[in-house]
Amino acid sequence: MNRIKYSAYLDKIQKPEKAALLIKNHHVIGVSGFTKAGDSKTVLPKVAERALHEELKITVLSGASLGYNTDADLAKNGALYKRMPFQADPTLRKSINNHEVLYVDQHLGQTADMLQHIDTFKIDVAIIEALAITKEGYIIPTTSVGNSPVFAEKADKIIIEINRTFPESLIGIHDVKFLKKQPYREVISILQSDTRIGEPYIKIDPQKVAAIVFTEVPDCPAVISAPDEKTTAISNHILQFLEKEVEEGRLTESLLPLQAGIGKTANAILSGFTNSKFKDLTMYSEVLQDSTFELFDSGKLLFASASSITITEECSKRVFDNFKKYKDKLILRPQNISNSAEVISRLGVIGINTAIEFDIYGNVNSTHIGGTKMMNGIGGSGDFARNGYLSIFACPSMSKQGCISHIVPMVSHTDHTEHDVDILVTDQGLADIRGLAPVERAKLIIQNCVHPDYKEQLLEYFEEAYKLGGHTPHILEKTFSWHSHLKTYGTMRK
Amino acid sequence: MNRIKYSAYLDKIQKPEKAALLIKNHHVIGVSGFTKAGDSKTVLPKVAERALHEELKITVLSGASLGYNTDADLAKNGALYKRMPFQADPTLRKSINNHEVLYVDQHLGQTADMLQHIDTFKIDVAIIEALAITKEGYIIPTTSVGNSPVFAEKADKIIIEINRTFPESLIGIHDVKFLKKQPYREVISILQSDTRIGEPYIKIDPQKVAAIVFTEVPDCPAVISAPDEKTTAISNHILQFLEKEVEEGRLTESLLPLQAGIGKTANAILSGFTNSKFKDLTMYSEVLQDSTFELFDSGKLLFASASSITITEECSKRVFDNFKKYKDKLILRPQNISNSAEVISRLGVIGINTAIEFDIYGNVNSTHIGGTKMMNGIGGSGDFARNGYLSIFACPSMSKQGCISHIVPMVSHTDHTEHDVDILVTDQGLADIRGLAPVERAKLIIQNCVHPDYKEQLLEYFEEAYKLGGHTPHILEKTFSWHSHLKTYGTMRK
Repeated sequence: MNRIKYSAYLDKIQKPEKAALLIKNHHVIGVSGFTKAGDSKTVLPKVAERALHEELKITVLSGASLGYNTDADLAKNGALYKRMPFQADPTLRKSINNHEVLYVDQHLGQTADMLQHIDTFKIDVAIIEALAITKEGYIIPTTSVGNSPVFAEKADKIIIEINRTFPESLIGIHDVKFLKKQPYREVISILQSDTRIGEPYIKIDPQKVAAIVFTEVPDCPAVISAPDEKTTAISNHILQFLEKEVEEGRLTESLLPLQAGIGKTANAILSGFTNSKFKDLTMYSEVLQDSTFELFDSGKLLFASASSITITEECSKRVFDNFKKYKDKLILRPQNISNSAEVISRLGVIGINTAIEFDIYGNVNSTHIGGTKMMNGIGGSGDFARNGYLSIFACPSMSKQGCISHIVPMVSHTDHTEHDVDILVTDQGLADIRGLAPVERAKLIIQNCVHPDYKEQLLEYFEEAYKLGGHTPHILEKTFSWHSHLKTYGTMRK
Repeated sequence: MNRIKYSAYLDKIQKPEKAALLIKNHHVIGVSGFTKAGDSKTVLPKVAERALHEELKITVLSGASLGYNTDADLAKNGALYKRMPFQADPTLRKSINNHEVLYVDQHLGQTADMLQHIDTFKIDVAIIEALAITKEGYIIPTTSVGNSPVFAEKADKIIIEINRTFPESLIGIHDVKFLKKQPYREVISILQSDTRIGEPYIKIDPQKVAAIVFTEVPDCPAVISAPDEKTTAISNHILQFLEKEVEEGRLTESLLPLQAGIGKTANAILSGFTNSKFKDLTMYSEVLQDSTFELFDSGKLLFASASSITITEECSKRVFDNFKKYKDKLILRPQNISNSAEVISRLGVIGINTAIEFDIYGNVNSTHIGGTKMMNGIGGSGDFARNGYLSIFACPSMSKQGCISHIVPMVSHTDHTEHDVDILVTDQGLADIRGLAPVERAKLIIQNCVHPDYKEQLLEYFEEAYKLGGHTPHILEKTFSWHSHLKTYGTMRK
């Protein structure tokens, strides 16, 4: 099976070690990869290795998080000067919080535009995983498209990493359109999740291809814990709410296109739709997890559009061994199109994302522990929460044996403001805060979402603050006292 | 001059007092009006009057702020149950902060969609100011379009207030398109500020028109103080920055469409372009102030699109007496189109808005004094800041004889997160924080934007926080100590 249909590339084939030498100290690198899918599995790890023995500090831009230990090794070996727009690695996270690595946490839909407009990040080398090369020398991506089109366009040199572990039947699921820079930006004419507007490959300048390497490493499999009591409760609250919306005529049984964030909670929520009353569902999301394929198999889901497929080993086998079954129901797009404000607002996406904590007025923190320590990043949650039809945020009401309440007086870091949040949900219940003033929201959130263990304590805060007046009552001296209490006494319980 | 071309309306003509009786207790009212322009000048004030003598609590939705004392009287007379999506009246502000009126502070571009999708606010009566009525019974608006199309569509009854103080030459400047509800939402096919996609009137069901009244009251004139030393310094910093962007090839001399918020600072910034090197400018904004017409007169501005025209008495005379001069350079649109995420992102708007305060990491507070007291509202700033090409926020570095620093450790309320802010500017200077990690931003903001009187104090906070680690260093116990200090000692100086 010949994966390179463009013969001029044949003499560019190299060992990964050699290709990795194209990356020099101070370089800015754009790498394929979105939530562990379709990332560089041999060249970038070799770059990380080099940093053990030589002075090598680089800036790494990706689609979203990378798989395996790539980010960990880059960080551990001191190879990272700056990293953006997303990461989810525990070792890198530590380096970021220790000020060893600069991290720019960005809306995933906005990186491509930033690169088009400002030259702060002139890309020296793009490393892009490919399933195959077309006869024109263009790249057919694997399980993610991410920011690869803009990296390839802006880079001086391109390294292509051909991954033969993916079946060639994936060819055709991608839809790539390179958007022109303003003021020449065109309409992104997607009217439904399944609209195609581009080509099934990334058009590149073959002259820029400096190396081609082969890899036999599959995507780093997702590890998703099974739904538990809490995530099932959250899922049920959301389903009940949406059922009521249908009953009352605000939505139809096929709802509007769904987006779900990554991780256990989002996956459990989406899984819940398998046994729901809804039908003919569609997704317009950024990443597809196992639950998407469960929904396909159950006949609930008609079509899914995203920027990547990130699934468990078991699911991966099932999907890629029977890819014909799914192929015409899937599109993978560049992340500035999967997460485009224009398309998300036009389609009226229902965005379901997870929060680290939220506050009594509906502000959401999705990134910072205790207001200072970065967890992963905002990802695409803001792209969907701001511009979709419905913005749902979910988290457990309480965790760490009840020492942490995830609803607090004021979030210690704001990623999504009160203006961008419609529905808040925990295992305890759901609050629909659309059209409510802050004091109305506070009462509803405390009543519906907070764990009974913390209800009184939170109500006390609200009532004391309320007496002081103000549209959004707060006692500035006490807003973060719950976080401080946790730091000092190991619990938010007072 | 006959302003009503649809004869079936003639027997609907009533006195404002009588029309006002259509509004009943507990009603939800949708009124025209955006930043004082094109609002109800006789019927709504009569409703406010009625509340002095009878039980009358209503919910009032508008485009944005209303003129004269309408909001003040509604609040003072206890007529308001809930108000949204924006206000800027000192009396109403007090009622909101005293919990006498519920206020929902919303992105101005999103109210129409909310009304289309949820029925929390079923509109009983719409009151819409009109310049004239077409022969089909349709409404030609005056100086604003705002949310009038959706109010008219959703209302049970419509009261039309014909204002004969505006010249008929305004006919034709409006471009109204009613967007379908998702999943049938169409492309908003605006490719430039001057693209027309609709009709120059608001199409309504004539059967719903319950009353027509006449008014001879002009728009409440804007009062804009002249640029002072600080606003001129801010304007110059922005012009210098944009000039550099042009020099370095990131923008052309005609930049990209400009948006400017309302008020003295925004007006001064825009005025600054009159004597700049830029040419063939365009605006895609929500409100046009005096500065827009200065720019037209100076030949710098080719075209301006917005949802309203809010100008001073002097400017008003000049503009409306010579309207032919400006007519083909203007479009007024519904605010879900002037503030559409889709269009703003496609055109790459340069958004210039004002902040109450911002923090060392680039988060912006545009609404709350001391974290609790509502000033006006977020308005459309978020629509532009999130989705435009450049998001600029400006404020003075210091005010109240130096007792308040407008750059603080942490904003006391977040309206625009670090993810949505590109440029911060004060009279002291400008910080371009694009692509910077939080600690890089902090250093640059402290260096460039903070008044010398507060530099050391802020640097001290940052350095102490930095030692504690974390991607976004903070000392949660001290984040709001500046605001507390101000409350206790009347100054943020420690």
